[in-house]
Amino acid sequence: MPLGPDLVGQRSETVRRANLGAIVRELHLRGPQSRSELVARTGLTRTAIRALIGELVAGDLFLEERGAPVGQPGRPSPLVRPREAGVVVLAVSIAVDSLAAALVGIGGEPIASVRIPRPRGHLSLDAIVEDLRELVSGLPVDAHRAAIIGIGVAMAGLVRRDDGSVSSAPNLGWRDAPLGERLPAAFGLDVPIHVANEADLAAVAELRRGAARGADDLLLIWGEVGVGGGIIVDGKPLTGVAGYAGEVGHMPVNPGGATCGCGSIGCWETEIGERALLRLAGRPVDGGPDEVDALLRAAAEGEPGALVALAHVGRWVGIGLSGLVNLLNPRVIVLGGLFARAYSYMEPAILAELDRLALRGPRELARIAPGALDVDAPLLGAAELALEPFLADPAARLGPRAQLVAAAGA
Amino acid sequence: MPLGPDLVGQRSETVRRANLGAIVRELHLRGPQSRSELVARTGLTRTAIRALIGELVAGDLFLEERGAPVGQPGRPSPLVRPREAGVVVLAVSIAVDSLAAALVGIGGEPIASVRIPRPRGHLSLDAIVEDLRELVSGLPVDAHRAAIIGIGVAMAGLVRRDDGSVSSAPNLGWRDAPLGERLPAAFGLDVPIHVANEADLAAVAELRRGAARGADDLLLIWGEVGVGGGIIVDGKPLTGVAGYAGEVGHMPVNPGGATCGCGSIGCWETEIGERALLRLAGRPVDGGPDEVDALLRAAAEGEPGALVALAHVGRWVGIGLSGLVNLLNPRVIVLGGLFARAYSYMEPAILAELDRLALRGPRELARIAPGALDVDAPLLGAAELALEPFLADPAARLGPRAQLVAAAGA
Repeated sequence: MPLGPDLVGQRSETVRRANLGAIVRELHLRGPQSRSELVARTGLTRTAIRALIGELVAGDLFLEERGAPVGQPGRPSPLVRPREAGVVVLAVSIAVDSLAAALVGIGGEPIASVRIPRPRGHLSLDAIVEDLRELVSGLPVDAHRAAIIGIGVAMAGLVRRDDGSVSSAPNLGWRDAPLGERLPAAFGLDVPIHVANEADLAAVAELRRGAARGADDLLLIWGEVGVGGGIIVDGKPLTGVAGYAGEVGHMPVNPGGATCGCGSIGCWETEIGERALLRLAGRPVDGGPDEVDALLRAAAEGEPGALVALAHVGRWVGIGLSGLVNLLNPRVIVLGGLFARAYSYMEPAILAELDRLALRGPRELARIAPGALDVDAPLLGAAELALEPFLADPAARLGPRAQLVAAAGA
Repeated sequence: MPLGPDLVGQRSETVRRANLGAIVRELHLRGPQSRSELVARTGLTRTAIRALIGELVAGDLFLEERGAPVGQPGRPSPLVRPREAGVVVLAVSIAVDSLAAALVGIGGEPIASVRIPRPRGHLSLDAIVEDLRELVSGLPVDAHRAAIIGIGVAMAGLVRRDDGSVSSAPNLGWRDAPLGERLPAAFGLDVPIHVANEADLAAVAELRRGAARGADDLLLIWGEVGVGGGIIVDGKPLTGVAGYAGEVGHMPVNPGGATCGCGSIGCWETEIGERALLRLAGRPVDGGPDEVDALLRAAAEGEPGALVALAHVGRWVGIGLSGLVNLLNPRVIVLGGLFARAYSYMEPAILAELDRLALRGPRELARIAPGALDVDAPLLGAAELALEPFLADPAARLGPRAQLVAAAGA
């Protein structure tokens, strides 16, 4: 063995932390489980699981309790489940038509959440920060203050991940807005903040808790006024160098098309965004979600104009997706936001174009599904983002006490 | 510590293998180095480095020799460098216009290589296998037989990575051709084979040894008759679910454009591929590389028709790249194959379109560069692919003897 005892000692600590991370992630993603299930899922020994669970319980992050009998003989195994007061994050979503906030614990379930509609139009950073401060004051932040380890923000705009500044948010009229810098103080929370694009986070949420569970290669298309995208490769979000990746709405698909809000021409967004849909249906292009709802009701009643408009947009969705299928060879494509609500009307056109235009190899492997989490997908993804540092190293939250207690008990 | 001694013992072996991997990868990527340089680069202790180098030397994979004096006082530190006979792979490239093969060792330098032109047109799998067998028989395979650990193949076509079958290769007329299954026997080599798309592999080679050294997020566009792409995210190739990812040539960019060889309409390839360039220049569209060379000579002499055609294609290259910059937020975009040769004529148009159409945030971060490895990029990438299992776990090649020798010497 080329390693001295010191190095082995150091590595054992690394191994302990990694194993704690594996268990906590398993419980976070799949919910409460018995020790036997954790042994089976993690590949760790029963002894190791016992010691590690001991630490998590001693650290007040998890508890073990009898599950309900499941009709089998014998007593049921105790389930390891998160304590609600253990670790909590504040998730925030700044969408085009609403603002939302939630307190979320291990397991990804909101403890409390609130959403308010927001009229469209430009608004200063100060105004949004003040609106969010008020919104968050409606959550039981004080009751969970000691447990809050971070803030996650889903933003309708282009976000630089390292400092949470918003490079551009056309719907708000922002450019280089230092959002990440401002929010913790506004919320009275001295914890790390993580800001990311809403579609990137919706992709994470749909992967972990929605329509793409169990897939590792996912492309999510998020439609509202603008069209965004989130790409997950091998289970990891593709962020690009600065966090800007995934701007599918600004792929050029039609050189003879309309001028886009971004200044370019014929972006995918100009063919499949909310305005294009409303224009095709002969409705006011700036009518917003109310007009979209009216359009979908008309489609449900069989109004030909509505159905034709939805099919036309569906065709353009399929055209763009065929390029993305060829480019990314994903397992699942999730259509969220507007596209989830309109999916049943668009599906035949989307699939027809994909079959016609995409390369056979990647086409055959890609499943298309509407999003399952509706408008909450970005918010839930923001919670996942803020929980990630804890999931990666739960030991940092345990401190030495839990370790000692667990060692004494093991 | 929750870990028993057995688990620690197991983990130490894991650590030893990981450390060997770190050293070998370092030497492979950066070339011969002294022990002190390896200490600085890997963060391992001098003691650990001595023991691990001992194993690599005892296993006949590396040697230590005095470097040449570099003008400093004192004797120069010995450099650790790969033995040529240590570990070798056979790299093969099946390109549209040529076939190539090389024996490549640790460090990525060809020991011997050969390339022959290939007339265009459909050719059966049997015929290609036979041509390659003959080509490889011109390499000193027998002299290196014991050292050959694998075969890497760069293929102009869509490849399923798990079995090396070619889902489609339009230029050869192949569909579902079991290439990976056939080659080892044809070469008389009973070693693992890895087949991948040529642009994917060109990206790996340009990242490790070419125009994108030091970058971790790379997009490579490879132009010939067809247009392919290779995407590297965080240092890892983006292969997609089956290995089909990167088919940038088949992104729809022009719904009013030409029918593509893939059956779709207005694919990027129809605007920027070799045929589009020759057509725009008023030359025979099927003239192949000879016509392209003639076109580039005409451009060098200032012929307006040639310059206009190159600028026009350059504009379309820029239009498509703007979408890819928005989608992937890469650090470097490498233009290879045809685009590398024509780069100086296309550059102004490419950059102008990127500045006009891409989102400011990702645009500012993306550097554009012509490929540095020319036609050999896919071949060198195929060598990297075949070396990868060894780089990931060199200990598997060492066996117990080296370990014992090293332990005795340490």
